Amino acid sequence: MTRFRLLVEYDGTGFVGWQRQDNGPSIQQAIEDAVFAFSSERVSLAAAGRTDAGVHALGQVVHLDLMRETSADTLRDAVNFHLKPQAIAILTAAAVSNDFHARFSATGRRYLYRIVNRRAPLAIDRDRAWQVQVPLDAAAMHAAAQHLTGNHDFTSFRSSICQAASPVKTLDRLDVEREGEEVRIHAAARSFLHHQVRNMVGTLKLVGEGRWRVQDVSAALEARSRSAAGPTAPAEGLFLAEVRY
Amino acid sequence: MTRFRLLVEYDGTGFVGWQRQDNGPSIQQAIEDAVFAFSSERVSLAAAGRTDAGVHALGQVVHLDLMRETSADTLRDAVNFHLKPQAIAILTAAAVSNDFHARFSATGRRYLYRIVNRRAPLAIDRDRAWQVQVPLDAAAMHAAAQHLTGNHDFTSFRSSICQAASPVKTLDRLDVEREGEEVRIHAAARSFLHHQVRNMVGTLKLVGEGRWRVQDVSAALEARSRSAAGPTAPAEGLFLAEVRY
Repeated sequence: MTRFRLLVEYDGTGFVGWQRQDNGPSIQQAIEDAVFAFSSERVSLAAAGRTDAGVHALGQVVHLDLMRETSADTLRDAVNFHLKPQAIAILTAAAVSNDFHARFSATGRRYLYRIVNRRAPLAIDRDRAWQVQVPLDAAAMHAAAQHLTGNHDFTSFRSSICQAASPVKTLDRLDVEREGEEVRIHAAARSFLHHQVRNMVGTLKLVGEGRWRVQDVSAALEARSRSAAGPTAPAEGLFLAEVRY
Repeated sequence: MTRFRLLVEYDGTGFVGWQRQDNGPSIQQAIEDAVFAFSSERVSLAAAGRTDAGVHALGQVVHLDLMRETSADTLRDAVNFHLKPQAIAILTAAAVSNDFHARFSATGRRYLYRIVNRRAPLAIDRDRAWQVQVPLDAAAMHAAAQHLTGNHDFTSFRSSICQAASPVKTLDRLDVEREGEEVRIHAAARSFLHHQVRNMVGTLKLVGEGRWRVQDVSAALEARSRSAAGPTAPAEGLFLAEVRY
């Protein structure tokens, strides 16, 4: 048996999310089916981040165990072949030791959230960014974001269905930068609560619009209540960018 | 009657191209239908570039004449509303003088061609770039491209169904640059022959792969025969980026 680590890119549009579910196609199922088509083995994939419906990945990391003897490159090409025409691509594959775990060995996760800040709807970036019409002050959003970094109880930014044992997390980085009509939010931490990035983005947007002041974000964090923070930003702007080990 | 100029972005995937045709949905038809839904007027749009099936636009320019009195902003928002959920967006609208013509008044057109140079298929950029697996030497492609700029008979890079009166064009710019795994080709000219950009890209790719030398591109140009140049690069990598007046 060999354990393989895969680096995976996908467009989450039209999928129910990473995890296998009865109510529609998942990324996990699609890759497991492609592995089966190649090896006739029913594997169960573990992933670094269980992305929600409509959320994308530039660098999701997963692992699987295969009985069939194969090179990593052959596995990558075969799985890519069987994944067609779905918008999922195995970027790299590598044999790893049996104690590597895509989820539990991860020491850092980085997400990118893309906002396209313009009046007109999105054509080229449709389903791959959040279109916000109100002009956003990215500098104010960045200033407010600095009040969220560090070790905090993130209950205010946690989905009600979050299954994490503790709401306390250390947020290493939350940067907001503008590049033309695009506002990009970079979030990095060892791990995140469910919906944490989207809830932080939805809150920072209130600051960007001028409806909230920087200190309102601190107050929302301190309230330790989901209703104290802003709404959840839509899934389509979120990308799991990188996982570190 | 007021003449309006529209700046249009679209994802050409699934369309038969800019121009109205019997065999499927066109960008032109979609916008004309949206204008009709707003004004009950059957307008006929003129565009700066008649993009082919699958070709995208970041900044297509079109014009139309309306009898209904309306502000440009109202027209933009109303047409965008009626275009939903199609991947076509009116970025800006402006009233212009009656002697403005989107096609004939244009003094320059710029195209972008995107190649993603990697082994793995495209997920996020699927249908919006050409995936090339063989490693490309972008510097060699750029050097070869400089032999195509200037005033030439571009018969070797002209589609057999091109309707232009003359194959002689002045190519102002043909730059190739690499940014990570992406190779971007920028082409600018007053106007282009049918398939000219895609035929130049298909030829430069041969140089990038090392199958052609720089001087082979000069020889292809001088041959004045379509069969002397490389194949036509696929539509999905091409974007009409900008039109100048």
